[in-house]
Amino acid sequence: MKFQLVFLLMTQLAFLSSAPQLKGDEGMFLFNDLPAKALQDRYGFDASEKWANHLRLSSVRFNSGGSGSFISSNGLVLTNHHVASDTLHKLSTPERNLIDHGYLATSIEQELKAPDLELNQLVSIEDVTGRVEQAVDAKATPAESAKQRRAIIANIEKESLDATGYRSDVVTLFGGAKYHLYRYKKYTDVRLVWAPETEAAFFGGDADNFEYPRYNLDATIMRVYEDGKPAQLKNFLKWSAEPLKSGELVFVSGNPGRTQRIFTVAALKYLRDSRIPYLLDYLRRKEILMQQFSLEGKEASRRARDELFGIQNSRKAYTGMLAGLQNPLTLQDKQSREETLLAALAKHPTDSNLAEAWPEIAAIQDEKAGMLGKSVSFRSSLFGYALQIVLLGQEDQKPNEQRLRGYTDAARDSLLQSLLSTAPVYDDLEQVKLADELSRFIETWGADHPLVVQVLAGKSPRERAAELVNGTKLGTVAERKKLVDGGNEAISGSTDPMIVLALAVEKEYRRLRSENERIAESERQAYAQVSQAVTVIEGTGGYPDATFTLRLAFGEVKGYVEDGKKISATTDFAGAYQHALAHAGQQDFDLPKSWLSAEKKVNLKTQLNFVCTADIIGGNSGSPVVNRDGELVGLIFDGNIQSLTSDYLYSDQQARAVSVAGVGIIEALRAIYNANDLADQIGK
Amino acid sequence: MKFQLVFLLMTQLAFLSSAPQLKGDEGMFLFNDLPAKALQDRYGFDASEKWANHLRLSSVRFNSGGSGSFISSNGLVLTNHHVASDTLHKLSTPERNLIDHGYLATSIEQELKAPDLELNQLVSIEDVTGRVEQAVDAKATPAESAKQRRAIIANIEKESLDATGYRSDVVTLFGGAKYHLYRYKKYTDVRLVWAPETEAAFFGGDADNFEYPRYNLDATIMRVYEDGKPAQLKNFLKWSAEPLKSGELVFVSGNPGRTQRIFTVAALKYLRDSRIPYLLDYLRRKEILMQQFSLEGKEASRRARDELFGIQNSRKAYTGMLAGLQNPLTLQDKQSREETLLAALAKHPTDSNLAEAWPEIAAIQDEKAGMLGKSVSFRSSLFGYALQIVLLGQEDQKPNEQRLRGYTDAARDSLLQSLLSTAPVYDDLEQVKLADELSRFIETWGADHPLVVQVLAGKSPRERAAELVNGTKLGTVAERKKLVDGGNEAISGSTDPMIVLALAVEKEYRRLRSENERIAESERQAYAQVSQAVTVIEGTGGYPDATFTLRLAFGEVKGYVEDGKKISATTDFAGAYQHALAHAGQQDFDLPKSWLSAEKKVNLKTQLNFVCTADIIGGNSGSPVVNRDGELVGLIFDGNIQSLTSDYLYSDQQARAVSVAGVGIIEALRAIYNANDLADQIGK
Repeated sequence: MKFQLVFLLMTQLAFLSSAPQLKGDEGMFLFNDLPAKALQDRYGFDASEKWANHLRLSSVRFNSGGSGSFISSNGLVLTNHHVASDTLHKLSTPERNLIDHGYLATSIEQELKAPDLELNQLVSIEDVTGRVEQAVDAKATPAESAKQRRAIIANIEKESLDATGYRSDVVTLFGGAKYHLYRYKKYTDVRLVWAPETEAAFFGGDADNFEYPRYNLDATIMRVYEDGKPAQLKNFLKWSAEPLKSGELVFVSGNPGRTQRIFTVAALKYLRDSRIPYLLDYLRRKEILMQQFSLEGKEASRRARDELFGIQNSRKAYTGMLAGLQNPLTLQDKQSREETLLAALAKHPTDSNLAEAWPEIAAIQDEKAGMLGKSVSFRSSLFGYALQIVLLGQEDQKPNEQRLRGYTDAARDSLLQSLLSTAPVYDDLEQVKLADELSRFIETWGADHPLVVQVLAGKSPRERAAELVNGTKLGTVAERKKLVDGGNEAISGSTDPMIVLALAVEKEYRRLRSENERIAESERQAYAQVSQAVTVIEGTGGYPDATFTLRLAFGEVKGYVEDGKKISATTDFAGAYQHALAHAGQQDFDLPKSWLSAEKKVNLKTQLNFVCTADIIGGNSGSPVVNRDGELVGLIFDGNIQSLTSDYLYSDQQARAVSVAGVGIIEALRAIYNANDLADQIGK
Repeated sequence: MKFQLVFLLMTQLAFLSSAPQLKGDEGMFLFNDLPAKALQDRYGFDASEKWANHLRLSSVRFNSGGSGSFISSNGLVLTNHHVASDTLHKLSTPERNLIDHGYLATSIEQELKAPDLELNQLVSIEDVTGRVEQAVDAKATPAESAKQRRAIIANIEKESLDATGYRSDVVTLFGGAKYHLYRYKKYTDVRLVWAPETEAAFFGGDADNFEYPRYNLDATIMRVYEDGKPAQLKNFLKWSAEPLKSGELVFVSGNPGRTQRIFTVAALKYLRDSRIPYLLDYLRRKEILMQQFSLEGKEASRRARDELFGIQNSRKAYTGMLAGLQNPLTLQDKQSREETLLAALAKHPTDSNLAEAWPEIAAIQDEKAGMLGKSVSFRSSLFGYALQIVLLGQEDQKPNEQRLRGYTDAARDSLLQSLLSTAPVYDDLEQVKLADELSRFIETWGADHPLVVQVLAGKSPRERAAELVNGTKLGTVAERKKLVDGGNEAISGSTDPMIVLALAVEKEYRRLRSENERIAESERQAYAQVSQAVTVIEGTGGYPDATFTLRLAFGEVKGYVEDGKKISATTDFAGAYQHALAHAGQQDFDLPKSWLSAEKKVNLKTQLNFVCTADIIGGNSGSPVVNRDGELVGLIFDGNIQSLTSDYLYSDQQARAVSVAGVGIIEALRAIYNANDLADQIGK
C-alpha cells in the first residue's frame, strides 16, 4: 500500500515534464507516443503497435482512483486490495465485514455488485490541439480564455459522445501545448469476486507502508458485466508462470495521477513552504478526527477505517515529499538546471522572451498561497451530494458548452453514477466530519464573516452539524433521485436543510471556483511557455506530466543498497512468515488465520513481492506489470520511501516501484484461499 | 486524566479575573485572601486561619506540573498517576515497566528515587507590591520597564533566599496590580511508593478522557525524604472514612496553572482565530509523530508513551476550548458584559481613560499572532540541555538582577535539579523529534533564511538531526556537569555539536525572548488598567487568574443533567467492572489482572470517582479535596468535557471537577493491591 491517487491531490493542471534529458528508466509515456528508440537502444526491445494496443486494451482505469487490468476472457479484473477497498467498505455491514475477513464468490451468483464503480478502457486517442487552439482568442484575459477553452472542450466531448457512445474526455497535456481526446469504453456493472483479508493485503500496516522489503498480497479480483452477464473480452493479459529475474525488462501500464516535474524552482518552493505544510496540517487534523471517532467502538472503527487508511497513506506520502523538498540538494539540482536553461534562453536569437514565464509563475504561487484553505465544499458525503445536486440543477439550465466541467452532457452518466450510489451513509460519521468542517470554516474565514454567521446560524459547529445531518433526507438514493428528476425547480424550492445550506454557499463556491480557474489558466499559459523553452533549448521527445490517463513506463527488476545494506529485488512467502514472527505482538503484523493454517501447503519459495525501476506515481496502484511478451508478471501496489520525491524528481538510484508477483497471487489463490476454480480462469 | 498543566500553556501572564460578579462556586482564591464571607453566606462555613494554614501546609506543588498533598506523618505524598507518570516513565526500563505494571514498595529500601522531582510546600506569602512598583519607572518604555521589573524581582528573590533559605518566587497577580513573594520549603528527594497499572489509572484511555461518569484509580503515592530518611511532617491530611454525600461542601487546595478570565473579547478572538488553531496544528503534528515512532515496536512505544499521552490530553483540552469559543453564545456573553462595563466607564467622572486599554489589547493580539511559531527552542531533551547550558554560562557573567528569569541565584538549584537529571535520554526518539523540529523550523522561517541555512548545514532535517544526536555527549549527566562546572569558557569553547548549535541560535533566542517580554509587558500594563476598570465599575473582592500557585476552590458534590439524562455525582467499583464489560474488546477498556482477580474481594459499593462544582483548571491535577473538617475525601484528576471552557468562563451548570474518592483509594490499596501496610500509614 498504497499508490492509489493520493487524497486531495486533484489539481487543475497537467504539465509537461522535462523531456529530453531523461534519467535511466524515467518516463510515463503516452500510448500514442511510445519511446521506441529508448527501448530499442537500452533494452533491444521492439514495442510493436500490436503489442502496445493489446496492452492498452487490457488495461483499465478505476474511477475510485487507481488502475487495473483484464485477466480473463470472461471479464475478470485484477487490481489492488487498497484500490478495491472503497468498494469493499461500501459493500460491508457490521455482519458482513469484507475488510476484515475478505471474500470469495464460489459461484457467479455470489459475486457482489459495487455500488458506484466505473471502469474505463481506453479505446482511442485523437489529437485535437488544433481545434482547441483555434477556439481560444490569444489576446483574451485569462478568465475569458478559460471560458473559451472550457466551451470548445465541452463541444468536442459532446460531439464525440454523440457520435461514438464512448465516454469522451479531452486531456490537457504538456502544460496546454497539446490536447488529446480520449475515448473510453465504460464498465459500470462491476462485481467483487475475491478479496483477501486486510491483514494479508496491508500486512505491516502504516508502519510498513512505503517500505521495502514487503510481503503484501495487495490484490483483489473483480469481474465486469454487460447486460447482466460476465463480459466477453477479446483483450486480456495472459499470465507468466516464470519467477521474475533480476535485470529483467518489465513494463507498467497504468494511470499515474499527477506529477510536477516541469515545476519551476519557485513552484517547488511554494510546495515546500506553503502547500505541503498546509496539506499536512489538514491531513493530520483529519487523521486525528477519524482516530477519535474510531475510539467510540468497533462499529465506529469499521465505518471510519477506509477513510482513515487513505488519510494516513496521503499523510505519509506528503511527509516524504516534503522531506525531499527540504533537502537542500533537491532544489540545488533543480536550480542549477533552471539556471542553465535560462542562461541559454537569454542568448537565444528568437525565443528569449519565453523567460518571462518564470517570474509570472513565481507571482502565481503567491496567488495560490492566498487561496489555500479557501473553500466552501465541506467534506462530508451528505453535503457533497447536496452541492452536486444544486449545481446540477443550475447547470442544466445552461447550454452544454457553458457548463462547469463535470456537469456537461458528456460527463452526466458518470456524475449520476456517483450521485445515485447505493453506498451507505453513516449519520454519526457524517456529523463528526461536518462539525469539523464547520469548525475549520470558522478558522479559515473568521467567525464574524457574514457567510460564516449565515452557515452556523447562531449555533456551535457541533450543534449545527447535528441539526443538518438529522434534518436532511439526502442519505437515501430515492430522495436524491427525486430531486435530480425534479430538476432546478424542485431543488431550488427544497426545504431539505442540506440543500438549503448548499444553496446558501453556491454563489461563493462559484466565485472561488472561477478564481481558481483563472489562476490555473494563467499558470497553464505560463507553463506552455516553459514547455516551449525546454523544447527550444533541450530538444524534443519526452513525456507529459501525469494526468490520470493511461501511460506506459518501463524498467528493470532491480534491488538497491540502503544504509550500506543490499536489498534484494524479490521476496517470497517464507519471508512473510518470518516477518510476522519478527514483529510478533506489534499492531498490523499478524498474518490472517488462513495464512497461518496454510503454512505447510504453501510453496514458501514462491515469489511474493518485487521491485523495479519503472517510473510510477499515485494512481498507478493496481497497474499490471508485464514482460516482453506482454504477459502479466506483477501488480503495482506501492513505491518505496525513496520514491516519494518522484512527484517532482525521478531517480533510479534507490527509488523503486513495488509490486505483488503474479506467481504469488496464483500461489495464494490455490494454496491459501482454496480458489482453484478462480485461478483456473485467470489468463484464459 | 488529566488535569495536569496542559502542554505548551506556559504563558507569561497572570491576569485578574472579573472579581465581584462571581457565578455560583466560582473562584480560585489566594490563601491570604480567602472568600470568608461567601463561605459563610452560602454554606455557613467558617474558614478559620488555623484550618486554612493546616490545609496550605499539607498541600504541595510538583515541578512536573501538578499538585499533591502530604497524607502521613512519615512523609507520604498523594498525587495523580498522570502527574507521577513523568517520573514513572523516567524510572522505567524495558525490563521494569512501571507504566504498564505499576509498583508497590514493600519496604523502605524498595522506594525508588525520582530523577528530577522537586516538591514545594508554601510556607509564607508576603505582599511586595510596593517595592516592585517603586523600582519601575512609570514613564519608561515597555522594554525598559520590563527590565526594571525583572531586576527588582531578582533582588527580592535573592534577598529572601539568602535570609530564609527557602525557595522564593515573586508572583505577578491581578495583571500586575499586585506582587506577592511566595516562600517554599523544597523537597528534592522524592521516592515512589505505590502506583497502579496504567490500565487502572487511565481506564477508558483517550476515549474516556474528560468524560464522566468515570472509574479511574488515577492515584500514586510517593514519599518525601530529608537527609536520606523519610521526612517527619507536622502537617498532613487525615482521611475521612465516610462516603461522599450529594450536596456536601468540599474544598480543593491546589495549583491551577493558568486561566484567562479577564481576557477582553479581542483577546478571546485571538485565541479562537489564531492561537488555539495554531496550537492544535502543532499538537496534532506531534501526536502523529509520536504515534509513528511508536509503530516501530514495543520498546519504541514505551519510550514515546508518556509524551504521547500528554500531547493527546492537551489536544483534547484545546479542542474543547476551541469548541467553546466557536460557540457564538460564549462570545456574546463576554461581549455584552464588556459593553456594559465600557458604557459605564465612559460615563465615569475620573477613570474613563482606562478604556484605552481595550484597543491597546486588541493591537497587542496582532503582535502576538505575528510571533506564533517563531522559536528556535527546538523541542528535544538534548537540545534543551544544550540551550540551558549555553544560557547558564552567559548569564553567570552578569549581576544577579540582570539575568534572565530562571537563571538567577534564587532559581539556580531548581535549574540544576532539572539540568542534571538522571532521566534516560533515548537517542532514537531524540532524532525523530529533532528532525521534526528542524522541518518545522524550515516551514516557519523559510528554507532560504540565513539562520535556517546555518542550522541545517546543507543537510536534510533527518540527516542533520542524526548527525547532531549521534555527535553530542550531552546524553550523560557527567558531560553536562563538566560543562556546567567549566563555566562559560568551557561552554563557549565546546565542540559538542549540540552546544555549537545552541550557540548559533542563542542570539536569535534572546531576541525573540526579549520581543515576547516586551509584548507581555505591554499587555500586563493594559490588563492592569482593565483590572482597575473592573474594580472601579463593579467593585472589589475576587481572585486573580491562575498562576500555578496555591489556591483554594470550593463547591459541592453534585451531579448534572446531560442530553436530558441525569448523571449521578458518584460512581463505584461495581460500575468499573460493568464499564469494562460494556466496552469489551475496545482499546484501553481492559481492567488490569489485579482488578479482575480481586473482583470478589472488593466491596463493590465503595465509591470510586465523584464530581463537584469547585473551580479548577490544568495544574490542579493531584489536588486534595477536603471536607469541612479538613479531612481528605478525594483527589482531583480531571474535569468533564463541559469544563474545558473554564479557562475563560466558569459555569456550574454542567461543568464539573472529577476526583478519585479517598475511600476508593483505600479500598483499592487493601482489596486489590495487598498494600495493607501502606494503607495503615495513611492519615496517621
